[in-house]
Amino acid sequence: MNIDVILSAREIFPDKVKNKTVVVIDVLRATSVMTTALANGAKKIIPVLTPEEAFDLQKEMGAENVVLGGERNAVPIPGFDFGNSPFSYPEEIIKDKTLIITTTNGTRAILNSLGAKKLLVGAFLNDKAIVESIKDDDEVVFVASGSKDHFTMEDSLCAGKMAHDLQEMAGATLSDVAIAMACLYEQNKDDIHAIGCKGKHYKRLKGLGELKDLEYCYQSNILDVVPVYTSEGTLVRL
Amino acid sequence: MNIDVILSAREIFPDKVKNKTVVVIDVLRATSVMTTALANGAKKIIPVLTPEEAFDLQKEMGAENVVLGGERNAVPIPGFDFGNSPFSYPEEIIKDKTLIITTTNGTRAILNSLGAKKLLVGAFLNDKAIVESIKDDDEVVFVASGSKDHFTMEDSLCAGKMAHDLQEMAGATLSDVAIAMACLYEQNKDDIHAIGCKGKHYKRLKGLGELKDLEYCYQSNILDVVPVYTSEGTLVRL
Repeated sequence: MNIDVILSAREIFPDKVKNKTVVVIDVLRATSVMTTALANGAKKIIPVLTPEEAFDLQKEMGAENVVLGGERNAVPIPGFDFGNSPFSYPEEIIKDKTLIITTTNGTRAILNSLGAKKLLVGAFLNDKAIVESIKDDDEVVFVASGSKDHFTMEDSLCAGKMAHDLQEMAGATLSDVAIAMACLYEQNKDDIHAIGCKGKHYKRLKGLGELKDLEYCYQSNILDVVPVYTSEGTLVRL
Repeated sequence: MNIDVILSAREIFPDKVKNKTVVVIDVLRATSVMTTALANGAKKIIPVLTPEEAFDLQKEMGAENVVLGGERNAVPIPGFDFGNSPFSYPEEIIKDKTLIITTTNGTRAILNSLGAKKLLVGAFLNDKAIVESIKDDDEVVFVASGSKDHFTMEDSLCAGKMAHDLQEMAGATLSDVAIAMACLYEQNKDDIHAIGCKGKHYKRLKGLGELKDLEYCYQSNILDVVPVYTSEGTLVRL
């Protein structure tokens, strides 16, 4: 197995993902929300690039069947049901519904990765389930979505953790950047939250009062869910 | 002071370098060669993108005044005087001459960074001289040129070392990626060569028999030279 890491959504060049297993990571908070919504019984998730696309789909599918979620620059979108907090999608809200979601970075990273052979969505919450599900694949790429086209600590740490764990489990060959991210995780593994909270996006969300979300999203392996992107353009449980 | 790091030549987006102090790093071997050539008395260095440009300049300036150097994919260019080994540019060859150089990654990284307010060239060889010369600047960006558009261990480690040393010296604020690279260096600082030799480009050069170059280029602070890019398109000693 070969493992590579991409460090922001705008660096997803087609040659880097084509025909590979790609895991898109946006810990704060898109892929944590998606994983949580599927764990809580969402029928499927449709990631879209713009609020307009979300409203069009809502009309087409019937408002009673869908929930609109997401954010722009970490704040909720006018007219949407909910923002980008995983706590907005409990079972009583999301069970058997379709979540239509658009976020600043995570959904774009997913839609930039459609050349993948297999496209999954991961976060700390489901890191072990992801690693287990891809341990026999040949070419694996972790996409740390980043924030506004920049490297972010939390996504890179999470990619490094999965690369590290996969190497331990399956004896993988890591690219230079995967070695570096695994090393970053290794050095901080006793307290990933401690280095995580130095991150710019973390500080921004903390300033917006989202501490509960931050603590939730930094938990490893609490959800046994592997969200997979289907040929219909939806994310469902594998 | 704010410190950022860019992790490959193709990720030098204009907004990341504009009006900043930019230090381009290509440890194996372009910026190590440039630093060495200036230390050995080269009058100036002209980085160009193509061999054709190099031949045109040679004709224009007179063959007796210039030395043509560089590589494509780590091997010498037909018709050039020398390849990309720092040992090809001793004082008896390069003193008072103009070095016209084109390499796969390093020269491209320099020419992609022309929006900088101040553009320097660095490597492990002159890391301390670089850090000393920019310690009072406000916005610093280290460009790890990478290899064939990919992250490379040696350039990222060198950027991490300079970011780390600058932070210790001047109390800088590091971006997420700068924190991560400084952390990578910190974890490996007792033996940077040990993690360096896991790098793909390092292994390629080792396979080509360039072990002497590899050992030379991994030496920290042996040259007190700061190459600076001038408005005439040349690199000279600061």
